[in-house]
Amino acid sequence: MLDKRNPQLNKNGELIHLLSPEGLSRDILTHILDTASNFVSVNDREVKKLPLLRGKSVFNLFFENSTRTRTTFDIAAKRLSADVFTLDIGRSSTAKGETLLDTIDNLSAMAADIFVVRHSESGAPYLIAKHVAPHVHVVNAGDGRHAHPTQGLLDAYTIRHYKKDFTNLRVAIVGDVLHSRVARSDIHALLALGCPEVRVVGPRTLVPADLAQMGVRVFHNLEEGIRDCDVIIMLRLQNERMSGALLPSSQEYFKSFGLTPERLQLAKPDAIVMHPGPINRGVEIASSVADGPQSVILSQVTFGIAVRMAVMSIVAGNEA
Amino acid sequence: MLDKRNPQLNKNGELIHLLSPEGLSRDILTHILDTASNFVSVNDREVKKLPLLRGKSVFNLFFENSTRTRTTFDIAAKRLSADVFTLDIGRSSTAKGETLLDTIDNLSAMAADIFVVRHSESGAPYLIAKHVAPHVHVVNAGDGRHAHPTQGLLDAYTIRHYKKDFTNLRVAIVGDVLHSRVARSDIHALLALGCPEVRVVGPRTLVPADLAQMGVRVFHNLEEGIRDCDVIIMLRLQNERMSGALLPSSQEYFKSFGLTPERLQLAKPDAIVMHPGPINRGVEIASSVADGPQSVILSQVTFGIAVRMAVMSIVAGNEA
Amino acid sequence: MLDKRNPQLNKNGELIHLLSPEGLSRDILTHILDTASNFVSVNDREVKKLPLLRGKSVFNLFFENSTRTRTTFDIAAKRLSADVFTLDIGRSSTAKGETLLDTIDNLSAMAADIFVVRHSESGAPYLIAKHVAPHVHVVNAGDGRHAHPTQGLLDAYTIRHYKKDFTNLRVAIVGDVLHSRVARSDIHALLALGCPEVRVVGPRTLVPADLAQMGVRVFHNLEEGIRDCDVIIMLRLQNERMSGALLPSSQEYFKSFGLTPERLQLAKPDAIVMHPGPINRGVEIASSVADGPQSVILSQVTFGIAVRMAVMSIVAGNEA
Repeated sequence: MLDKRNPQLNKNGELIHLLSPEGLSRDILTHILDTASNFVSVNDREVKKLPLLRGKSVFNLFFENSTRTRTTFDIAAKRLSADVFTLDIGRSSTAKGETLLDTIDNLSAMAADIFVVRHSESGAPYLIAKHVAPHVHVVNAGDGRHAHPTQGLLDAYTIRHYKKDFTNLRVAIVGDVLHSRVARSDIHALLALGCPEVRVVGPRTLVPADLAQMGVRVFHNLEEGIRDCDVIIMLRLQNERMSGALLPSSQEYFKSFGLTPERLQLAKPDAIVMHPGPINRGVEIASSVADGPQSVILSQVTFGIAVRMAVMSIVAGNEA
Repeated sequence: MLDKRNPQLNKNGELIHLLSPEGLSRDILTHILDTASNFVSVNDREVKKLPLLRGKSVFNLFFENSTRTRTTFDIAAKRLSADVFTLDIGRSSTAKGETLLDTIDNLSAMAADIFVVRHSESGAPYLIAKHVAPHVHVVNAGDGRHAHPTQGLLDAYTIRHYKKDFTNLRVAIVGDVLHSRVARSDIHALLALGCPEVRVVGPRTLVPADLAQMGVRVFHNLEEGIRDCDVIIMLRLQNERMSGALLPSSQEYFKSFGLTPERLQLAKPDAIVMHPGPINRGVEIASSVADGPQSVILSQVTFGIAVRMAVMSIVAGNEA
Repeated sequence: MLDKRNPQLNKNGELIHLLSPEGLSRDILTHILDTASNFVSVNDREVKKLPLLRGKSVFNLFFENSTRTRTTFDIAAKRLSADVFTLDIGRSSTAKGETLLDTIDNLSAMAADIFVVRHSESGAPYLIAKHVAPHVHVVNAGDGRHAHPTQGLLDAYTIRHYKKDFTNLRVAIVGDVLHSRVARSDIHALLALGCPEVRVVGPRTLVPADLAQMGVRVFHNLEEGIRDCDVIIMLRLQNERMSGALLPSSQEYFKSFGLTPERLQLAKPDAIVMHPGPINRGVEIASSVADGPQSVILSQVTFGIAVRMAVMSIVAGNEA
């Protein structure tokens, strides 16, 4: 019989890796958000430092480049007093033909505690989590089109912060849902946390009808998609899509799916606008919306540090 | 009515950003030098560490590359116990088309305390300083041809260390003054500190006559320019000038403006020789002068760490 | 009369630099291994941190790139609580034409304590060690074909860990001994520690007969070379050799000199298999051997951290 246990949990059902919100219970997700909530105030202090990961070694393994996400994990780990090691993967042994798992074995042998992994291949963090010794923990910082769980969790945190309760919310995710690991992790997290209606909104090429299988409602018209919503999550339009076969041009995209102040009025009056960043002003979002009173984009960034501190301290078993 | 207040000062006249020595009072400059003087001894200790910036987050934002200057700020911040984050700007979101101020907003939202900024555009650190929230402080690590205030201050510190008093000194700055932010910051700092005579010396293409407007004396002949000086600051000749239209060749330059032991004898017998580094041996300075008894070039480097510690602790409001 | 003193020792015979195991006494090498042995347990602790180098500044100067070795020194230094500064040499002042010794002088003036140096030129760390002020210590992290002393010491540590006593061992070093600084440092360390028989094994192009001058036995046949050995150290075959004039192809190499399970049976039944990494599976070593019960390759990595902690704390005079 196959072991059907979620690879993110140990035998006692405790979170030891964070790979995807998929399959995590509402209790576990709520525990992460509650822990993050304790850390938000740390980031406001004179001395932004807790000793929870003192003497632990966190390795940033970014096989796909992302200065911003890497920096947020670096900040989170150092505020927990960990030692952080960032490997320049492009120049490392992997480039010399060493296999991924040999690299992992070597770093584990150096007494690593946490691997923060970003990889262009979906599933790479699972492969690593299955392979490592029990004392090593894996946090997925984005794998292919599959998952970006800390983004999903910081989005959930932000929504809970502003809306208090998930159980009466209508949330629209707008843009290139098909290729977005952020959208996928948002959907999994929000549904598990009890959000009754999650919508995905975008052109047919980027939001195919069969996404409905995930438990969401599919819209191909922005006005309809955001009408009466409490939360609008705008996705970043990747540059490679703009000039590709899937879209005519970024101006055309903005005409149909850009969030303008006029369109925002279709949502609830107290709706919040979110975006994982970096934003493309005038492509998926008008500057006046991004900088406007309903935008909580910079709060997402702030909460993101606290959520990453929570995830790392929980998987390492050293909570606040 | 426009706010004429110096953007480096808060309403109480306290230094909250360091952007340029221009417009800073003798009191403020002297306070920085006095604070640095306390830190010089820290760098001689067994344990080179003070807790003044513990739990603070310092971001090195080098939009223009400079390993050496970045390293000196990194050292200064870590000796004050700060957490230091160095962004690889070339690979970051800015490269993805994010605006400078969006990048700054995002990093501020991560609870940054100090931005150390180097930028090829004059004025970029001012733009950032005007934009950031009150709890964030900006230190200019060199912007275009405009200013390099910590270099100006460490030069002032070095001169005060060896000459005790600015009020009876003759200082010559030799080389490509036109394109040099170091020269500009030296001139502003030295004049504010009471130096009665600052000379600029170099060929007409690099030292135009209208520099006299800054309050300095202009010389186009090295022998005349350094005669009876107490301090000679040699500037680095940038490679791009040597092969450009402004100069015939580096050998020709050395013949006319290179500091040799013979020429050095025209200055006062106890004159000191300074250089911001890295030196071009045999281009602007003879090796025997750079390594000779009157050279204080390596002392500048040592004092530079203490001056940067002083600046960061003062702007952050956590002085020794 | 020339000073014949070993440049690694001060006048009291204490280790102040680690440049090569060559010329170091058995007492000194044993002292390093004994000190490392105290640090192995630190790497197993909840809090992997000792204050021995607190407030010290360690500079990683990798003139030749090596992410893996650099990371091991970074880990070792941070677990001793040092501040670590890694210079991107390719982008630094050296690239602007500054000489190596000017770079060293500048970093020394910033109050450096330890330079960890990797350089493609044999002897570069010696040049630096001769040049620096007495308070600065140099650790060679690999210079040209000359030496890689911490690798030699961690190999010696690993052998002592598994075999307890050097004085009755037969050790074979297999592969491109001619170009290998690892092999050279292994040979010096093992002979000084009392190992009675060290063999070098490989094709004539990579293992010339005159290596016997080092006090080793030369073999050109793998089966003969490893017969009845207690320890087999496989060297990494550099990619540039595989397609070069010295070797026909990597497949041909594996046929003659690859370590297979069958060949391993010629060694003693309890022989251990070592490799400095990263391994080339199917080139110098079969996967089943690298991952097999006699392989101690990952233990080498673990012990390498402890050995580097030992070396840095000893040269800095702050032992456990």
